[in-house]
Amino acid sequence: MSGAAAPEPFDAVDVIRAKRDGGAVPEDALRWMIDAYTRGYVMDAQMSAFTMAVLLNGMSRDEIRVMTDAMIASGERMSFDGLGKTTVDKHSTGGVGDKITLPLAPLVAAFGVAVPQLSGRGLGHTGGTLDKLESIPGWRAALSNDELHAQLRDVGAVICAAGSGLAPADKRLYALRDVTGTVEAIPLIASSIMSKKIAEGTAALVLDVKFGSGAFMQDIDRARELARTMVGLGTDSGVATTALLTDMNTPLGLAIGNANEVRESVEVLAGGGPADVVELTVALAREMLALAGQPDADVEAAMRDGRAMDVWRAMIRAQDGDPDAALPTPRETHTVTAPRGGTVIRMEALPFGIAAWRLGAGRARAEDAVIHAAGIDLHVKPGDIVAEGAPVFTLSADDPARFARALEAIEGAWDIGDDAPAASSLVRERITADSI
Amino acid sequence: MSGAAAPEPFDAVDVIRAKRDGGAVPEDALRWMIDAYTRGYVMDAQMSAFTMAVLLNGMSRDEIRVMTDAMIASGERMSFDGLGKTTVDKHSTGGVGDKITLPLAPLVAAFGVAVPQLSGRGLGHTGGTLDKLESIPGWRAALSNDELHAQLRDVGAVICAAGSGLAPADKRLYALRDVTGTVEAIPLIASSIMSKKIAEGTAALVLDVKFGSGAFMQDIDRARELARTMVGLGTDSGVATTALLTDMNTPLGLAIGNANEVRESVEVLAGGGPADVVELTVALAREMLALAGQPDADVEAAMRDGRAMDVWRAMIRAQDGDPDAALPTPRETHTVTAPRGGTVIRMEALPFGIAAWRLGAGRARAEDAVIHAAGIDLHVKPGDIVAEGAPVFTLSADDPARFARALEAIEGAWDIGDDAPAASSLVRERITADSI
Repeated sequence: MSGAAAPEPFDAVDVIRAKRDGGAVPEDALRWMIDAYTRGYVMDAQMSAFTMAVLLNGMSRDEIRVMTDAMIASGERMSFDGLGKTTVDKHSTGGVGDKITLPLAPLVAAFGVAVPQLSGRGLGHTGGTLDKLESIPGWRAALSNDELHAQLRDVGAVICAAGSGLAPADKRLYALRDVTGTVEAIPLIASSIMSKKIAEGTAALVLDVKFGSGAFMQDIDRARELARTMVGLGTDSGVATTALLTDMNTPLGLAIGNANEVRESVEVLAGGGPADVVELTVALAREMLALAGQPDADVEAAMRDGRAMDVWRAMIRAQDGDPDAALPTPRETHTVTAPRGGTVIRMEALPFGIAAWRLGAGRARAEDAVIHAAGIDLHVKPGDIVAEGAPVFTLSADDPARFARALEAIEGAWDIGDDAPAASSLVRERITADSI
Repeated sequence: MSGAAAPEPFDAVDVIRAKRDGGAVPEDALRWMIDAYTRGYVMDAQMSAFTMAVLLNGMSRDEIRVMTDAMIASGERMSFDGLGKTTVDKHSTGGVGDKITLPLAPLVAAFGVAVPQLSGRGLGHTGGTLDKLESIPGWRAALSNDELHAQLRDVGAVICAAGSGLAPADKRLYALRDVTGTVEAIPLIASSIMSKKIAEGTAALVLDVKFGSGAFMQDIDRARELARTMVGLGTDSGVATTALLTDMNTPLGLAIGNANEVRESVEVLAGGGPADVVELTVALAREMLALAGQPDADVEAAMRDGRAMDVWRAMIRAQDGDPDAALPTPRETHTVTAPRGGTVIRMEALPFGIAAWRLGAGRARAEDAVIHAAGIDLHVKPGDIVAEGAPVFTLSADDPARFARALEAIEGAWDIGDDAPAASSLVRERITADSI
């Protein structure tokens, strides 16, 4: 016996046409579209026509809220209510050399705040946090919900793989956008990021929205629009949300890769490390702690006195990693030296990111493995003085055949000149619920 | 043993992005996109995002030409070179009560011209030429290429089903556009129609581009843009092409359906029939004969003296139909009478088309059957005087349960008033290669 299927209350073509013709999609029709897509009733081809119409015609704040809510409703909703701690999450839109999550999560947790960092793997030239941590022998990314809760309670900081139960509609939609040229739509980026963060159940969220040549958003205006959209979405959903707009024209720190980024993160936790990584880690930690009710926390002290490092070691151990184990080292290296003396005036993030990717630090397809020891170590950064013949950067790979294509990517992406570049702050703007 | 697949020279996402960002797609990339879609390498979801970008951002005349050419290249190309006759085809963008192909093909063929009318079936409120002819007992729509050529040589006129070998990319693309809200893009409509006509191998083509409430293009400006695009495409491809813009605000003729439209067509061939059907048949026949080198042909004479009717009978017989057989008659009829005396001032094509469809004359899904005797017969048209209680139109169906929904569609779609509506010509503009 089979019962008749309930008739569908909307028609995908009508929903597509409404957005195509520049109108707003009514709330119930938009909720249906996302739900019916998740169920497989609305086809990929229909959803991709819809997302292209969204990219070209935009969405109102209300539509974005409804779309995000519908994606949350497609899966499970977690809750950290029983923890007895405030939870604060952080999300970065991604960049070259962006390892900030690694020192940041233990640093904030050192103040008694729970920091759940449900992370992803890298694809293309931006690295993935899980890929970096998997450089550490034994460390595992997958945790059950019970393990996640226990570790948040006992250690405070968790960086682990996001479960597939959160916003499954987003997972399907993101994969579709990736192959249909519709990744760059701000309403879709915002709802994709925020649906997972809201479903995860965090009480507060700090967004690191990057702009510049190595970022997803090339110009600061689009980054600001994305940040405002996400802060509005978080606020509308009861998640205290702020955003920093940060410069991603130059790689962050000196290490671009996986194992070398872990090394650099440990240096920062030990009170050292490159100034820009420290600056951003501290700025984001202050935002997170302010949202957690500790606006006056002495963040630098927790790095100086080893409290942040203690949480790091406990966090790695809780996920079966050995914080004292040697990290993988490269089989082959190739160092590029300065053709003249002077000041480094430019190092473009995107070409260096692509070079590290070509060296094996990133993956071209989701099923590829990364090479943990591959990547680039910068010896100087813009503003630094370098002597003729001194090392500028070192490429690392398993196979020396990879160097040529990596060098090709970096060709013309850096300069040595006579005048120091104008110094500018990494953190350019701060966006809060009150300022949108 | 298996050889490695040749690497693809382009990436669908790059092609989509080029159109998304408002640029022109380079010729080789566009050809690849259509070819790769036909091969199944480019996915439906990618093509639908592309077509939405085309709908919203448009295409240049050059891009439309390349796209059309790529669709032609996806299948076989026919040739009528060996016939020893000039071939002239006609295409209508479709409307309510549009049976013009039926009298037109034999009328033009009566002047020694070959008229290959590769036609389709109806879907939605516009009827299909093949559905209409299948009212005739024994008549078959499917002909082999050899049968088609023999009939063109011996009879001159052929109305038959288009083979699946012509522009298969268009077939796939049209089905995709239908479910993704991208039917209405002029570059896609033009390339869809013209790819099949050019692949068919006709030497000349006359387009009947309709505008108005019962047409695909509601307003004359869009109809003109479509007509110009298609005349340009035909001209660029070596097919002598002209177009007429014709009014489709009112149903064409008095019969809307299948069997009743065949009956009306035979009346026209016998020298009678409604004035508007005669006007359009004569206008299109003159255009076709002018392109075939007979600008002074006496079209009306061929209807008066029975030559056109002779070709009709031979054409029907050649496809196993019996031109003398009785046509199906309806089981149930329902006549609507005038609530007052006066002049008919309005009869909207679209509602009457929808009503005929609901009566069973059309199909909702491609696999449905049509009911040949179902439809509507108008007893008066706008401008005609009617007495109170006199019949205005009669609905026909197999099942009287269909009348209520049909009447609902027509509700408010016609009026009787005191002043005659302003008379206007059915043929509003003529577009030639010289005028675009």
